[in-house]
Amino acid sequence: MLIKDAGGEFALIERLREIVPSRHPEVLVGIGDDAAVIRINEGQNPFMLVTTDTLVADDHFNTRWAKPEQIGIKTVECNVSDIAAMGGVPTFMFVSLVLTPETTVEWTEGLYRGMADSCGRHGVITAGGDTTHGKVETISITLLGRVSPENLCLRSHAMPGDCIAVTGRLGASTAALNLLRKNLPVTSYLLEKHLTPRCRLDASQLLAPIVHAMIDISDGLASEVNHVCRQSGVGAEVFAKDIPLHPDVIDAGRTLGIPPADFALNGGEDFELLFTIAPENLYKLKQTGLTYYNVGRITDRGEAAFLVTESGDKIPLKGGYNHFR
Amino acid sequence: MLIKDAGGEFALIERLREIVPSRHPEVLVGIGDDAAVIRINEGQNPFMLVTTDTLVADDHFNTRWAKPEQIGIKTVECNVSDIAAMGGVPTFMFVSLVLTPETTVEWTEGLYRGMADSCGRHGVITAGGDTTHGKVETISITLLGRVSPENLCLRSHAMPGDCIAVTGRLGASTAALNLLRKNLPVTSYLLEKHLTPRCRLDASQLLAPIVHAMIDISDGLASEVNHVCRQSGVGAEVFAKDIPLHPDVIDAGRTLGIPPADFALNGGEDFELLFTIAPENLYKLKQTGLTYYNVGRITDRGEAAFLVTESGDKIPLKGGYNHFR
Repeated sequence: MLIKDAGGEFALIERLREIVPSRHPEVLVGIGDDAAVIRINEGQNPFMLVTTDTLVADDHFNTRWAKPEQIGIKTVECNVSDIAAMGGVPTFMFVSLVLTPETTVEWTEGLYRGMADSCGRHGVITAGGDTTHGKVETISITLLGRVSPENLCLRSHAMPGDCIAVTGRLGASTAALNLLRKNLPVTSYLLEKHLTPRCRLDASQLLAPIVHAMIDISDGLASEVNHVCRQSGVGAEVFAKDIPLHPDVIDAGRTLGIPPADFALNGGEDFELLFTIAPENLYKLKQTGLTYYNVGRITDRGEAAFLVTESGDKIPLKGGYNHFR
Repeated sequence: MLIKDAGGEFALIERLREIVPSRHPEVLVGIGDDAAVIRINEGQNPFMLVTTDTLVADDHFNTRWAKPEQIGIKTVECNVSDIAAMGGVPTFMFVSLVLTPETTVEWTEGLYRGMADSCGRHGVITAGGDTTHGKVETISITLLGRVSPENLCLRSHAMPGDCIAVTGRLGASTAALNLLRKNLPVTSYLLEKHLTPRCRLDASQLLAPIVHAMIDISDGLASEVNHVCRQSGVGAEVFAKDIPLHPDVIDAGRTLGIPPADFALNGGEDFELLFTIAPENLYKLKQTGLTYYNVGRITDRGEAAFLVTESGDKIPLKGGYNHFR
């Protein structure tokens, strides 16, 4: 049976996690959040975070339009984004590289210069890795982090009545990718969001102490809201009219004949943060000075996730990027 | 410039480590040993080990003759082997999988059953990972471990006068691969060593308190001795006549017209341990009851590594598996 016929990526992960030993008293959060949470000591920083992400040439980056420096930035940012989504700060990185016989030293050094740029920005130290050969350039990063118990934000922490908000405008990366694939002109704003996304570690540190659930938007708004709902056992309403879109994303939708909110709902790689927060804490959110956008609210336990369209219809919130579909 | 023209894998790694931030007071050992050593607390288990290894379909395993269960075993064993080589014990594993549109659920579940077999054997818990799509099945594992300061064995710890020994007979995996590639018959001993290698975590725990340097044999004896010499700043003599070979490896050499010691020196994936030990501690080694084979000795600081041939000639110890050659 092919993976797409078995329900895709997330259904497969559910099957696989039953096969391997995955429960241990030191593993507070294992398979199924942005990062694992492991208790490493009893002191002031008891929790270690671990996340891993793999990027494959031609699938996750395209060497036709992405410079190696840009690919390096993106590989680090998408991992730091996972640590940020847990409320943590990144520490040590391990890089597993698959290079081909045709890969040049210059390309690889460019990749590492991009990584160094993001590592420097986020205080990440490269502490090891593995370099091997294969047919397709593949970059697999494992990133460690630390988080204090007060700042730990899980997907499962959403509460009925919470506001759902995001830290920035969405859909730009996917809009750019759709234009690039059709050889259509791309604005510098869209191109930058696609080629050198910057994760929101800055916002995360201000949000972590005051929000309930948090998740980074790597597979699209619809997918992330559904993850939060499923893991928190709650429902949600997302209001289409409130999804923040940059004018260039709206233009891209017009050019491509795609409703622009689709880029936000079903695209991915925005690397903004989505969080849920109790209404009574909104004043603290305002005090942070962060820009944020309310997109919906968490509904009762046992409810489902819905999208409220611009015309007021309530439809199941489906979509989001799912590998193997 | 292609990587092979820049000196291959190890020369590339030297160039890359200068580009990214890689020094930090908590990183006791970073890029360049079997695993990184990170100080995580001040208590009884202050050191965490981290290793990462990637296996690519058709390059590191062949789905023509390897069942998914066997591939699963091999991916875990080669990572546990790195932790064992540091004197540590493995703890938590993170699996990054690249699957193709043609990969079946059955193959993937078989892979995980193999992983579960080795994880159960070594007490490893799967605490997270990432599943994505690409053109070639790729399995990247990051494995954490712990080690006490008394047991920590580094490549840089060899001392002039040390004996060099290995925990088992070598070359079987490479001999099998060479036979398989020519569609020649392979004995069950060779096949098992190639398809389901078992790392020597058992031996490592007995060796760690009494040896100096330790390294696992994943790229061939010649390569590993050279790593130890370079990082310890010493020389070595390896005696060809003392390299332990199973009769099936000798037969394979005869069939293929290859000196059988070449499988041990230049092959790889034996996953036995190579260690150096002070002669005055050999009695402790005997007390462990472990089977081991003396293969040479560490010479003075600033010396080079030599192979003493069966005819008594002393030639530079070259070779070992180097990707991109």
